[in-house]
Amino acid sequence: MSTERASFRTIRDEMSRRIAERIWLPGALIPGEEALAREFGAARATVNRALQELARAGVLERKRRAGTRVALHPVREARFIIPRVRQEIEARGSEYRYQLLSCEEELAPEVICARLSLRTASMLVHVRCLHLADRVPYQFEDRWINPQVVPDAKFATFRDMGPNEWLVGHAPFSNAEFTFMAAAASDEEAGLLQIRPGDPVFVGERITWMRAEPITLVHMVHPSSHRMVTQL
Amino acid sequence: MSTERASFRTIRDEMSRRIAERIWLPGALIPGEEALAREFGAARATVNRALQELARAGVLERKRRAGTRVALHPVREARFIIPRVRQEIEARGSEYRYQLLSCEEELAPEVICARLSLRTASMLVHVRCLHLADRVPYQFEDRWINPQVVPDAKFATFRDMGPNEWLVGHAPFSNAEFTFMAAAASDEEAGLLQIRPGDPVFVGERITWMRAEPITLVHMVHPSSHRMVTQL
Repeated sequence: MSTERASFRTIRDEMSRRIAERIWLPGALIPGEEALAREFGAARATVNRALQELARAGVLERKRRAGTRVALHPVREARFIIPRVRQEIEARGSEYRYQLLSCEEELAPEVICARLSLRTASMLVHVRCLHLADRVPYQFEDRWINPQVVPDAKFATFRDMGPNEWLVGHAPFSNAEFTFMAAAASDEEAGLLQIRPGDPVFVGERITWMRAEPITLVHMVHPSSHRMVTQL
Repeated sequence: MSTERASFRTIRDEMSRRIAERIWLPGALIPGEEALAREFGAARATVNRALQELARAGVLERKRRAGTRVALHPVREARFIIPRVRQEIEARGSEYRYQLLSCEEELAPEVICARLSLRTASMLVHVRCLHLADRVPYQFEDRWINPQVVPDAKFATFRDMGPNEWLVGHAPFSNAEFTFMAAAASDEEAGLLQIRPGDPVFVGERITWMRAEPITLVHMVHPSSHRMVTQL
């Protein structure tokens, strides 16, 4: 190491390299904080921060008295950015277009109420719209919004702006659940996406809450050419 | 707040609540570190750690001299745990079974070499296997392993242990790319998963590398009843 004080990032990356290249073997005890601080010419707090981050990532296991070991079976996590369809399309260099299909207050079907844990049948705002990339259907969005939590939704027209973008500004959420699945296109989905009924579609479902209150449930339906990609 | 010193988690959650409930508005300057430390009865370092975490999550924007603001358009990320099929099945309370279908060294098809950025046609270890939950096919795994990076793969039989579990112990990776998509089941996939050819399947593709060297490419194919779920 150079004589300059190593940053927490440098130390983390170097430790992560030793683990990846099996210089530090799975299950092995690694040097103590003090020894590492000496080796890296860094403050103990800096080493500690790097150790903490690797422990949170599941790569190291820290035991209060027994020291720090390389995890035997690291749990690894990947992240994906919660997509906003306009940015997704524009990021590919395509032209984004938005088309509202319908927007009504409706008594939500039982299956929707159940998914939102609404115990009684509820009037929800139902928005259906299409997102196009270079004028080709990219995503059919079928969304229910709970006006108990977002009263403004009753007055929004969603004519010029999709409900996704609108909600970012009007209904921050505290919790979300994402589900991804493959399904067979319904007649309606096939017609809108210009594919055949029964063709495979890639469906993302998202539910958001403000604390215990459900805000919205959305199904985002893509033709099978769609790829959801994430890196680690 | 209680008179006890607030933990970094308590402070982070309270700040996150103020942002979510728009007590702190998008774009607004929030109180300085010292004021927050006084308010929460915590050390400045503790407040700093909470601010850092919210900034990393994209909820706050910290500028060295201009102070900390609530992000106008927070980019939100979700995480998912990189699944290991055995744990996935056992976590549902189901009995896990593994069945090796074939394991051979083969000249990899062009499309596989291209996906792995191998410039010349290469001999790879090709493993095909089935993972069952309560004796019902859950996932068909079709995997290519690069013996240039993992020489042991030539001698592994994969008879008793799936290549996923085996690789965790034998080939740590530094980078990975995940792709999720919907597809129509091929005849082979349909036969193995006990569905009809053309039925939708949920496919996860994973490529891992050690630095620039490709380790493995795998396709994990599930019937359309499969759900990939993640929470935020």
